[in-house]
Amino acid sequence: MSNENVFQQRVRLANAEGKIKTPDEAAKLIEKGMTVGCSGFTPSGYPKAVPQALARRAAGSPIPVTLWTGASTGPELDGELAKTGCVYKRFPYQTDDTLRKKINSGEILFADLHLSHNAQNLRYGFHGDVDVAVVEAAAITEDGGIIPTTSVGNAPAFVELAKKVIVEVNTAQPSGLEGLHDIYLPKNPPNRQPIPITAPGDRIGTPYIPCSPQKIAAIVHSEVKDNQRPLAEVDETSHRMALNLLDFLDVEVKSGRLPRSLLPLQSGVGNIANAVLKGLAEWPSDGLTVYTEVIQDAVFELLDKGKIRFASSTALTPSPDGAAKYYPRLKEFADRVVLRPQEISNNPEVIRRLGLIAMNTAVEVDIYGHVNSTMVRGGHILNGIGGSGDFARNAWLTIFLCPAIASGGKISKVVPFCSHIDHTEHDTDVIVTEHGVADLRNLSPRERSSVIIEKCADPQYKEMLNDYRKRAESGKGHEPHILSEALSWHVRLEKNGSMKS
Amino acid sequence: MSNENVFQQRVRLANAEGKIKTPDEAAKLIEKGMTVGCSGFTPSGYPKAVPQALARRAAGSPIPVTLWTGASTGPELDGELAKTGCVYKRFPYQTDDTLRKKINSGEILFADLHLSHNAQNLRYGFHGDVDVAVVEAAAITEDGGIIPTTSVGNAPAFVELAKKVIVEVNTAQPSGLEGLHDIYLPKNPPNRQPIPITAPGDRIGTPYIPCSPQKIAAIVHSEVKDNQRPLAEVDETSHRMALNLLDFLDVEVKSGRLPRSLLPLQSGVGNIANAVLKGLAEWPSDGLTVYTEVIQDAVFELLDKGKIRFASSTALTPSPDGAAKYYPRLKEFADRVVLRPQEISNNPEVIRRLGLIAMNTAVEVDIYGHVNSTMVRGGHILNGIGGSGDFARNAWLTIFLCPAIASGGKISKVVPFCSHIDHTEHDTDVIVTEHGVADLRNLSPRERSSVIIEKCADPQYKEMLNDYRKRAESGKGHEPHILSEALSWHVRLEKNGSMKS
Repeated sequence: MSNENVFQQRVRLANAEGKIKTPDEAAKLIEKGMTVGCSGFTPSGYPKAVPQALARRAAGSPIPVTLWTGASTGPELDGELAKTGCVYKRFPYQTDDTLRKKINSGEILFADLHLSHNAQNLRYGFHGDVDVAVVEAAAITEDGGIIPTTSVGNAPAFVELAKKVIVEVNTAQPSGLEGLHDIYLPKNPPNRQPIPITAPGDRIGTPYIPCSPQKIAAIVHSEVKDNQRPLAEVDETSHRMALNLLDFLDVEVKSGRLPRSLLPLQSGVGNIANAVLKGLAEWPSDGLTVYTEVIQDAVFELLDKGKIRFASSTALTPSPDGAAKYYPRLKEFADRVVLRPQEISNNPEVIRRLGLIAMNTAVEVDIYGHVNSTMVRGGHILNGIGGSGDFARNAWLTIFLCPAIASGGKISKVVPFCSHIDHTEHDTDVIVTEHGVADLRNLSPRERSSVIIEKCADPQYKEMLNDYRKRAESGKGHEPHILSEALSWHVRLEKNGSMKS
Repeated sequence: MSNENVFQQRVRLANAEGKIKTPDEAAKLIEKGMTVGCSGFTPSGYPKAVPQALARRAAGSPIPVTLWTGASTGPELDGELAKTGCVYKRFPYQTDDTLRKKINSGEILFADLHLSHNAQNLRYGFHGDVDVAVVEAAAITEDGGIIPTTSVGNAPAFVELAKKVIVEVNTAQPSGLEGLHDIYLPKNPPNRQPIPITAPGDRIGTPYIPCSPQKIAAIVHSEVKDNQRPLAEVDETSHRMALNLLDFLDVEVKSGRLPRSLLPLQSGVGNIANAVLKGLAEWPSDGLTVYTEVIQDAVFELLDKGKIRFASSTALTPSPDGAAKYYPRLKEFADRVVLRPQEISNNPEVIRRLGLIAMNTAVEVDIYGHVNSTMVRGGHILNGIGGSGDFARNAWLTIFLCPAIASGGKISKVVPFCSHIDHTEHDTDVIVTEHGVADLRNLSPRERSSVIIEKCADPQYKEMLNDYRKRAESGKGHEPHILSEALSWHVRLEKNGSMKS
């Protein structure tokens, strides 16, 4: 069957003919100064054809808009629009090189938000109107229901709130996606009800995003694949971090605090998370569950092996190899995978109720357990806080992982004082590096600093850290610091290219 | 009726005779090295007789224990035990002078925890066993149910988890307390269910703390009143902050984002909170509600006037005048006031569902919206984070209030970089000082710094702040900082006694 025929099959909406448009026609619905909400979470499920058409139209004459997504997206959206001056302001998370550069230079305004907050704050009216939603879809139902593709993200809220909706029906996305989604939209206070999820697999909504057909202003055919990125091989450092973490969890099981099947796992995106999840292949239980933001290759593998019983997330983000292997088989996973809006995948209520084990990567940690997840070099942003705060604050156990050093030892990731703080001492239970595990539960700051330095710091920085710690303690205080030196490691790095004294 | 007769009436437990003990006898159940969980939240509802007996026994020969409470307590508990060396470690919040000094000198270990996390983390086994619970009660029911007094705090969890329970039946506490409490104990994951509160007034539990009579090891008669503190008159600065805040809320109402009856109010403890609530006396709606930690005089006054329809909290903390006026009339408020465990009053699930307006006091704020709630002078703790994090993260709107200056202008409360961070830029919606309101919603860090300086900083520091901001921005970055200067204001204060250059 030709792609054109597949497209026609997937657009099941009654009287859709008049709405079918080219990407260039659809992009004309977007004007300078508008607020545009796009589907997409990680480079999955984001619109490609319309943003590229908008970028073409903007060449030489920028059309700056306020751009919302679920999280990061691919180059066809963030990259193209950033390059052509089409992004005035960007929410709530990003990973694109061009975009990042323009954010750090001050050319593009960006606000780094907890991912569970976006939809409700838009609904509360805190960010003004949403003019246009652009949503990638696997299909449109008879009465306008939009079936998302490889992510849900904030798309349901954008569709709910937007004046006009552009749907990109992407025939390159697997048909097996249909049925995976579970769309639930909380009401605003004072009418909000409990979110009735009591297990990762509970389905509480519809398999499509409800949308009045009148709001659908354009339906576009797209055939551009998600810009999947290959996963690096698990390196030695990540492997050792994973082993340390799994040893720690094993002790928790043996102490009786955790069942052998653990509690639902949340893990960040990327190579460290991948290493941890891969490590679970040998875990002696077949009852694992996942309640997280993103399903990467390792989760598919563990689902396939029967190790993971159920996985809930807001996006599928396999590598190209993973996609080639698992996307044709999605139907097999339909009763064991669910994709939710990010305000549900990351919801404090659900996270706390289910009792997640939250595993996220840190940029740096300090000796008292504060965590920097976002910034380097005095406020230069990397990606953003993403969902880490949603999970870290509300999990059963909050674990941050990072290698002890970077840049061949010029940077210690364990520092006296974080140069930016995204998660505070009040939220951090456990820190893991390749050297060991610092279990901070039940510890005062002075106890924490000893344990973090002993267990987590790189040997080449232990003496310097202990020297700071002891001198700070001699000046007294509950969480002793020498404020004139607290950030001196970062200053030295900037000046000399190394934190070493 | 004599106090002794009142005591006998209040101890309704069958076969209680053998359990009735003197404070000194009961205190012998507490031994060195134990973990002891005491009722009490603010100087309300904490045990007095047994801690004082323990302190007497410890004179000259300390009996160090790990001491848990709900939050701060009165001098008979924290003060006496800290003075006599009976506190080895203390959780989760404090305001006592002696205790604070010993924490800052490193003599007493302290961990500053989100108040909603305590009970669950104890239940998860993260803090070891609870050996003894000491709970102040208004009465004991026939089958062992403990009716708390002026606070609930963490008492239900301590009773649930402790091996032995000591009940101080305090006949100085008003009999009208009976019926005010609503005790609900969440299960641990994976068996936790939604907390079925959808309005501040919902009652979901029992009016007593369930307790097996076998666990009750001692029942003690106490007649010591809560150590209520007078409230200062509302000063000019607090009054102006309150006016600014109310003006801001009025605009939110007029913009259609808030109903005139607002959403449930949460406010911190103390004089600024008191000024804000007093300001609501003229608010043009009789449908206000409160979902907070502590009910102080102003809430009683507004309940009495019919301005506030319903108030939920975990403690009643009136001034001596307020107690004299309202405690004899508690029965009148029985259907409009509820006292809950702090894991429910501060629960993220409920806070987010109800959509609270969270108003808390900051020690200092920085130009990007990070907030210090706990520390001065390089890690010297004041009180602790308390519930501010529970509310700030999950509220409909998160407001921090602080005066723009302190110490007659030697200290600016708006600084380039907070010397300790308890709440991050990701959580702060609005900052209020006596000079104005910075509405940070929808703003990037560079926009935020302009607005905070313009609206909130004291005129005598604006130029210095703008100078820092502009020079930082010239170095680029999403949230520009000059790390070598970021903490220099605090360093200067320490050295010269003033932040002024």
